[in-house]
Amino acid sequence: MEKIIEKHVQLNELENGGVGSPKGFITGGQNIGMRKTKPDMGWIYSERPAAAAGVYTTNLFQAAPLAVTKASLAKEGKLQAILVNTVSANSCTGEQGLKNACTTQKWMANHLGIPEHYVGVASTGVIGLQLPMDKMKKGIDRIKLGEAESWFEEAILTTDTKTKHIAVQFTIDGKKVTIGGACKGSGMIHPNMATMLGFVTTDADVDSDDLHLALKKVTDRTFNRITVDGDTSTNDMVLVMANGMAENKKLTVNHPEWPVFMAGLETVCRELAKLIAGDGEGATKLIEVRVTGARDEESAKAISKTIVGSSLVKTAVFGSDANWGRMICAIGYSGEPFDPTKVSMTLGDIVMFEHGMPVAFDEEKAKSYLDQDKIVIQASLGEGDGEAVAWGCDLTYDYVKINASYRS
Amino acid sequence: MEKIIEKHVQLNELENGGVGSPKGFITGGQNIGMRKTKPDMGWIYSERPAAAAGVYTTNLFQAAPLAVTKASLAKEGKLQAILVNTVSANSCTGEQGLKNACTTQKWMANHLGIPEHYVGVASTGVIGLQLPMDKMKKGIDRIKLGEAESWFEEAILTTDTKTKHIAVQFTIDGKKVTIGGACKGSGMIHPNMATMLGFVTTDADVDSDDLHLALKKVTDRTFNRITVDGDTSTNDMVLVMANGMAENKKLTVNHPEWPVFMAGLETVCRELAKLIAGDGEGATKLIEVRVTGARDEESAKAISKTIVGSSLVKTAVFGSDANWGRMICAIGYSGEPFDPTKVSMTLGDIVMFEHGMPVAFDEEKAKSYLDQDKIVIQASLGEGDGEAVAWGCDLTYDYVKINASYRS
Repeated sequence: MEKIIEKHVQLNELENGGVGSPKGFITGGQNIGMRKTKPDMGWIYSERPAAAAGVYTTNLFQAAPLAVTKASLAKEGKLQAILVNTVSANSCTGEQGLKNACTTQKWMANHLGIPEHYVGVASTGVIGLQLPMDKMKKGIDRIKLGEAESWFEEAILTTDTKTKHIAVQFTIDGKKVTIGGACKGSGMIHPNMATMLGFVTTDADVDSDDLHLALKKVTDRTFNRITVDGDTSTNDMVLVMANGMAENKKLTVNHPEWPVFMAGLETVCRELAKLIAGDGEGATKLIEVRVTGARDEESAKAISKTIVGSSLVKTAVFGSDANWGRMICAIGYSGEPFDPTKVSMTLGDIVMFEHGMPVAFDEEKAKSYLDQDKIVIQASLGEGDGEAVAWGCDLTYDYVKINASYRS
Repeated sequence: MEKIIEKHVQLNELENGGVGSPKGFITGGQNIGMRKTKPDMGWIYSERPAAAAGVYTTNLFQAAPLAVTKASLAKEGKLQAILVNTVSANSCTGEQGLKNACTTQKWMANHLGIPEHYVGVASTGVIGLQLPMDKMKKGIDRIKLGEAESWFEEAILTTDTKTKHIAVQFTIDGKKVTIGGACKGSGMIHPNMATMLGFVTTDADVDSDDLHLALKKVTDRTFNRITVDGDTSTNDMVLVMANGMAENKKLTVNHPEWPVFMAGLETVCRELAKLIAGDGEGATKLIEVRVTGARDEESAKAISKTIVGSSLVKTAVFGSDANWGRMICAIGYSGEPFDPTKVSMTLGDIVMFEHGMPVAFDEEKAKSYLDQDKIVIQASLGEGDGEAVAWGCDLTYDYVKINASYRS
């Protein structure tokens, strides 16, 4: 168990933890024949109905499963199961798509013997493709809780190259509480509300309204801080379920240990977000941009996202070219006001730019730094105390390769 | 001579026309040793001082030559010569960079025997590199008007693969008027004010203030409608010079033939903008996005720019993959409000999407359409009568290749 110190809160990271780690959650995945052999359907089930909350894409073409899940959550603020399929995004599929999403929700609810509105549905894949309803039906009928062909974490992937999951443990009211999470990237990723599929489970007992506030706040500082290609998908969604089986006193914003829970939730979401950024389509490197000294957090956020989203910065990092001019240029077109003569910038611990002017640096040292798989760019503006971090990845031949022929 | 019909105004396009086509303009280029053999310095000279206007990058790190040119233009609104160098962008070069830009301006003015503030200076290349002043001096001293090693149009290029120039002729007050233009792209191109180096010359007699208004208006509909990679450079500038040698009655917005002049100026700038987009770094195809039925022109502009700027649309076009879902998705995250069920879209003349739903289409036909080198995507929103066109290019392996090692 590795220890993460987060805001002076002690969190223990579980080895190989994921959405199945918190008490009472059963998860799994299987192949239902939409893909040749890879798993293409995943599920999460909680022994008890769980307080739940979601955040959704801001794309106006919102996919059918988002509408269905949102409407279901609106009834009681609870979920007991989540069903995810890949290959078809069930987006831009009109009335039929909406009907199909409702039908799969119903099938899943019947199969598990729970109310329909306790089932969340999520899809990822190609836009405009209807769900293959016969395969969905057979797949749902085959689900046996506790008997899965594959991990949930594997079953939700598309062009991702690896599973993305984490779980942390901490103590609330003397009770051991666990938060687990899993997500998938890795194209059409840009910070704007949810930006991907993310699932967080916890055995903490949490007030449903406060859980929603917590998710919104944390999403804005984690999932909304990553970009792969600037495209905000129609299907992005993050769902959190809290089933209360840790037996703590119900958590609300007024609970003295609320900050502990928030730190746990933020850690899970941040690590998942970084996993998505680092596994962006074709990516070979994770880029972390830290902006300090901005007018305020919003300004720092805008600047950090502009740097990490610049195609020219991304290609320079891919080529291990310490082209600081492109990073500085991106700050300049971020749309945020600042005094150029007060700007400084470092790449790792190498100072590149100070008070608006370039600084001579060791090119070889910069190149070897850029050859690593995690790159940190730090910019300070000297305007105020606004800080933010954003994550992205390099832009590579493989990004082009993957996306020039996604449908074929 | 090919005829372009533009807004019911007859314009004749000159064969192989450029900034040297209007009466009284002498242009040229040479190699001053910053690059091995390719020309790296270009100039424009007008026999008479010309009314002039400029638009400049909105990037807060504005390069030194922009500051110098802007300040010079502020004096009389006139220019008689323009000096352009490549290799060093003279950006983020502090006091020394500013001093160097002023010095080259002075050398050029002395060499030509004209006032310093009649010389515009422009630079393009690597950020943070000071101008090689010895080479600049020798180069300027060697300039002989009318005796050039190369075209101006060649001398201003960086990663561009071809020269970009045009000239049109039309009649004002019964006098033949010519407008010529030249520009360079092709990376760090994103619509926000000027976005590249552009030079327009005309022998029309035009009021200086109205020339500035005309340039601003036209730039917004042409150069500001292109994107290559979303990066707005520190050096973008468009300059126009009008020397009056066509002997027309001075053009103002109240001149009955003002619309003819505007049509000529817009045509020159639009064709140059399209040349930049089509020759974006690594590009194999020009993408034109036409949006109709938006709430207003601003909304149409935002949507067209979002589609043409999407990395996923750009890679799909590169791969000749009729992935309409990505185009629709881009409309959805443009930030503009609209009713998704009223949206329709065509690729060339192939209908892909109608009233918010996909339409079955012939994949083979779509693929052969996408194999062409000019792709038109048309979206109609059914909200109002706002229209706009934007231009961009595909995202290819070569874009990554060019930018992963620009400085080496």
